Amino acid sequence: MSAYHLSESKSIAMMKFLALCFFVISLINIPIAEARIRHYKWELKYEYKSPDCYKKLVITINGRTPGPTILAQQNDTVIVEVKNSLLTANTAIHWHGIRQIGTPWFDGTEGFTQCPILPGDTFVYKFVVDRPGTYLYHAHYGMQREEGLFGSIRVALPDGESEPFAYNYDRSIILTDWYHKSTFEQAVGLSSIPFQWVGEPQSLLIQGKGRFDCSAANPPMKADVCNNTNPECSLYSTTVVPGKTYRLRISSLTALSALSFQIEGHNMTVVEADGHYVEPFVVKNLFIYSGETYSVLVYTDQDPARNYWVTTNVVSRNATATTPPGLAVLNYYPNHPRRSPPTIPPSGPMWNDVDSRFNQSVAIRARKGHVYSPPATSDRVIVLLNTQNQVNGKTRRWSVNNVSYDIPHTPYLIALKENLLHTFSQTPPPEGYDFANYDINVVQNNTNATTSDAIYRLQLNSTVDIVLQNANTMNPNNSETHPWHLHGHDFWVLGYGKGKFDPINDPKKYNLVDPIMKNTVPVHPFGWTAFRFKADNPGVWAFHCHIESHFFMGMGVAFEEGIERVGKLPSSIMGCGETKHLLKP
Amino acid sequence: MSAYHLSESKSIAMMKFLALCFFVISLINIPIAEARIRHYKWELKYEYKSPDCYKKLVITINGRTPGPTILAQQNDTVIVEVKNSLLTANTAIHWHGIRQIGTPWFDGTEGFTQCPILPGDTFVYKFVVDRPGTYLYHAHYGMQREEGLFGSIRVALPDGESEPFAYNYDRSIILTDWYHKSTFEQAVGLSSIPFQWVGEPQSLLIQGKGRFDCSAANPPMKADVCNNTNPECSLYSTTVVPGKTYRLRISSLTALSALSFQIEGHNMTVVEADGHYVEPFVVKNLFIYSGETYSVLVYTDQDPARNYWVTTNVVSRNATATTPPGLAVLNYYPNHPRRSPPTIPPSGPMWNDVDSRFNQSVAIRARKGHVYSPPATSDRVIVLLNTQNQVNGKTRRWSVNNVSYDIPHTPYLIALKENLLHTFSQTPPPEGYDFANYDINVVQNNTNATTSDAIYRLQLNSTVDIVLQNANTMNPNNSETHPWHLHGHDFWVLGYGKGKFDPINDPKKYNLVDPIMKNTVPVHPFGWTAFRFKADNPGVWAFHCHIESHFFMGMGVAFEEGIERVGKLPSSIMGCGETKHLLKP
Repeated sequence: MSAYHLSESKSIAMMKFLALCFFVISLINIPIAEARIRHYKWELKYEYKSPDCYKKLVITINGRTPGPTILAQQNDTVIVEVKNSLLTANTAIHWHGIRQIGTPWFDGTEGFTQCPILPGDTFVYKFVVDRPGTYLYHAHYGMQREEGLFGSIRVALPDGESEPFAYNYDRSIILTDWYHKSTFEQAVGLSSIPFQWVGEPQSLLIQGKGRFDCSAANPPMKADVCNNTNPECSLYSTTVVPGKTYRLRISSLTALSALSFQIEGHNMTVVEADGHYVEPFVVKNLFIYSGETYSVLVYTDQDPARNYWVTTNVVSRNATATTPPGLAVLNYYPNHPRRSPPTIPPSGPMWNDVDSRFNQSVAIRARKGHVYSPPATSDRVIVLLNTQNQVNGKTRRWSVNNVSYDIPHTPYLIALKENLLHTFSQTPPPEGYDFANYDINVVQNNTNATTSDAIYRLQLNSTVDIVLQNANTMNPNNSETHPWHLHGHDFWVLGYGKGKFDPINDPKKYNLVDPIMKNTVPVHPFGWTAFRFKADNPGVWAFHCHIESHFFMGMGVAFEEGIERVGKLPSSIMGCGETKHLLKP
Repeated sequence: MSAYHLSESKSIAMMKFLALCFFVISLINIPIAEARIRHYKWELKYEYKSPDCYKKLVITINGRTPGPTILAQQNDTVIVEVKNSLLTANTAIHWHGIRQIGTPWFDGTEGFTQCPILPGDTFVYKFVVDRPGTYLYHAHYGMQREEGLFGSIRVALPDGESEPFAYNYDRSIILTDWYHKSTFEQAVGLSSIPFQWVGEPQSLLIQGKGRFDCSAANPPMKADVCNNTNPECSLYSTTVVPGKTYRLRISSLTALSALSFQIEGHNMTVVEADGHYVEPFVVKNLFIYSGETYSVLVYTDQDPARNYWVTTNVVSRNATATTPPGLAVLNYYPNHPRRSPPTIPPSGPMWNDVDSRFNQSVAIRARKGHVYSPPATSDRVIVLLNTQNQVNGKTRRWSVNNVSYDIPHTPYLIALKENLLHTFSQTPPPEGYDFANYDINVVQNNTNATTSDAIYRLQLNSTVDIVLQNANTMNPNNSETHPWHLHGHDFWVLGYGKGKFDPINDPKKYNLVDPIMKNTVPVHPFGWTAFRFKADNPGVWAFHCHIESHFFMGMGVAFEEGIERVGKLPSSIMGCGETKHLLKP
């Protein structure tokens, strides 16, 4: 619980009150074993907020960003009534990590599964959370996620079942990076000729709070625009009791940045990744990529006479001169939650230490006793070469297999179900690239790519292997980390490699014994990542780099499976593009 | 023709070329007497532009703002294919002054006649321009008009017919005011508690060009944000030949400002207002309100050895300290179009000289021989008291008869035609206010108002009188000018008055002899304005203050007439709100 706005005595009273609440809630929970309805009513608004002391428009849910945490138990039905009060802005909300089995129309992915939610409209999402774990929700429309429309989903086990690890308290912390330019400005810059990139973020936020140094702004900013004494940008502080074990659910929804997360003086034991139990391992710092969620256990065994820094910093990109580390406070009760730790915040790892990040990826395995074995073989292998490109020699884009992806304006799910196949390209996208001749270590001779909104059609219940192949960007000796997120499925992470994937020998090294299941996975610079999934969820699903600008610039694909098994589509997802032709005569 | 980017010799060559073009065009025109199709293809985009030297996002049509001028002849059919490439922003375009007889669904008014046009969609407007004259088009969605989405419509007489005045050349000039804050920021401020108003505009633009003094910015701005040497903000210059008569079609699409327009050393003869011929009168300066169009004749009889200033400045509000006059150049051929006049730009009239503005309004009468007589009596009188209010003691709003107007999210036209009457209030809005007791000269005791989206339902072909009654705002001794624009109709301006309208005696002074017909009319501070119109155009029509923020804050109403005569609605206007229920099962 955050207590940074409270005086010390109030925060003690609050602790007692919460203890009472937990007791009462536990009493309530006991007699109700069956799945329940969790009903949320949200209103989305633009508001002026100062998350890092700089005042700008953000999107709030019921007045807050991050939005309310959705709390549910496995097999509950979550209903979220989203009222769009964003004046003239559309929206759509994706339930990140929720597979939407039987409800592919509520995945919240604009252009894939629904039309945007128009201003004034109330859209009702209704879906089952069928697995326990740590998930997220966020806008999936243009680059709107960056405006603050996101939050946590925490799915508990059914009553009577318990996790394979023990802890006393449970906390959710979302990490984000933060820009002062609006996403409108950013998106126009990315689509402009010449290309204009917003650059590195101005700050990193921990659970929606950060700090931009107003006095260092150039040109200077007025106090009504940037004010470091604004209580809205007081650092996030989370209060802990000494000698207890805390489950911290750390997730990242950065627009761009790969992050390292650490807590001064405390080890972290990784126990969950993307809703799956991890064979525990201890880290000083956790590397985390946009779209990932982890649970770590932290034991509060340090000197209780002081507070400790919680920090996050950019890795994989050199942002040392541009983006200061994000700070928060681990408040050891009964110290004042606003009391600064007596130390200098610890620095994170070197931004360019790729090996440490690679090693963490490899270390993440399914927990013993909780291994879901993957199919031994796959029916189809799709290799996706990740490259930075131009289109028509002008527009800057990202591509897979030299095809830069465009989101259609008639959602695939509707187009396929209602036989509006003319609304997107029917030329299948490539299954691979020119393995033999492509040099992933240099800038391509011809950086030109084509654009397409074509999709991969998968046979229902087939097993599909995906190999993400990284490569050099359009700058010499440069390759970036891309965290890829798959909608509608978890996948088995079969392996990570350095250099060019060898289709003959590398599959022999796949981990088929205890692969972790995830929904988001990084492909490291100049490396490859392989995973396997079962195409067993009828619908149309996005698979894309979770870096907001990269997907906007074409770094994504779409998968379809079992469209004929999809039930009747709700009319609420209609209204855009060719779906208007479905109107009564 | 603007030639400010051309060298002097190039501009002469251009003149010759244009003369040839006009000759060729005149040859082409002769044999085609019947109505034609005028087909336009537009792409709307956000682009970074510097209209007043400050770089910000603007909406362009085919790369330009103001957009292309629509040129047509009376009874032509205009088809405009609007491709919305605004990334994530919706739009709708209103054809201001075009009555849309038989095509009420193409009036382009979001919430009234159509759903917004979604990003990626192409919307086809198709309508007949049934009267000659000077009209406008502009966004009619949120406060989007202010982002630069506007342009001129010029409808010529059929071949063989001629205007009742002679001129050699024809030019269109749109006046606007310009803010550096985005309309998103402005709109959120207006909807916020506490209310935040953007204040006076940073500059005035003449045909899309103005000048903000970058060096005076506080805090200072970097040169990549504001640069007075940027050619994009070179002043608008229009080249004239000595000894000729120019028809200047002056129109205003300001967000806020009432303007005075003048040309140094030249008189202007007013000959047209909102598409109707005016009994000519001569002015030194023309007062013009947002939504109005005028034609003035200017004879180039001054010393041809120099250029002359064209200026516009704010009246009705005290913006002397905040908004510098807008400047342009009247370029006497063969002087260089970029050569500054040797004089100091003339100052405009005093901002608070209400009498001069009132007198101009009264002076505008229908031209002899071109008088359309109004019906002698009316069937219904609706008095609309204009007030500034709060709602729930918090939100700042504007109201008519203490009802602050809300735009619905299911367009009225569709709701009425498809029997979705539950989508808006069925309680009729008030026909007047408490005439006996309301003191228009003081701040109200109770400034609270209610909100409603109810409409006035008019009997088809009935004659309706509207009396706009102005009043004191929420500030003592303050009343503002409001230019009201009626969609779908022209109306007869029956009279203007000072003080409180007297329903017994004032109608006796109505001008029923030679009232001008208009579509936009000001109500002056503490005064009233009366007009009459025939409810003979089946559809639903907005009537609202043309100040962008005032309509946004509730200063408007809606009229319906003859909905049962409206033809089959095109599916292209659907997609929002309850229109989704019209989808096939």
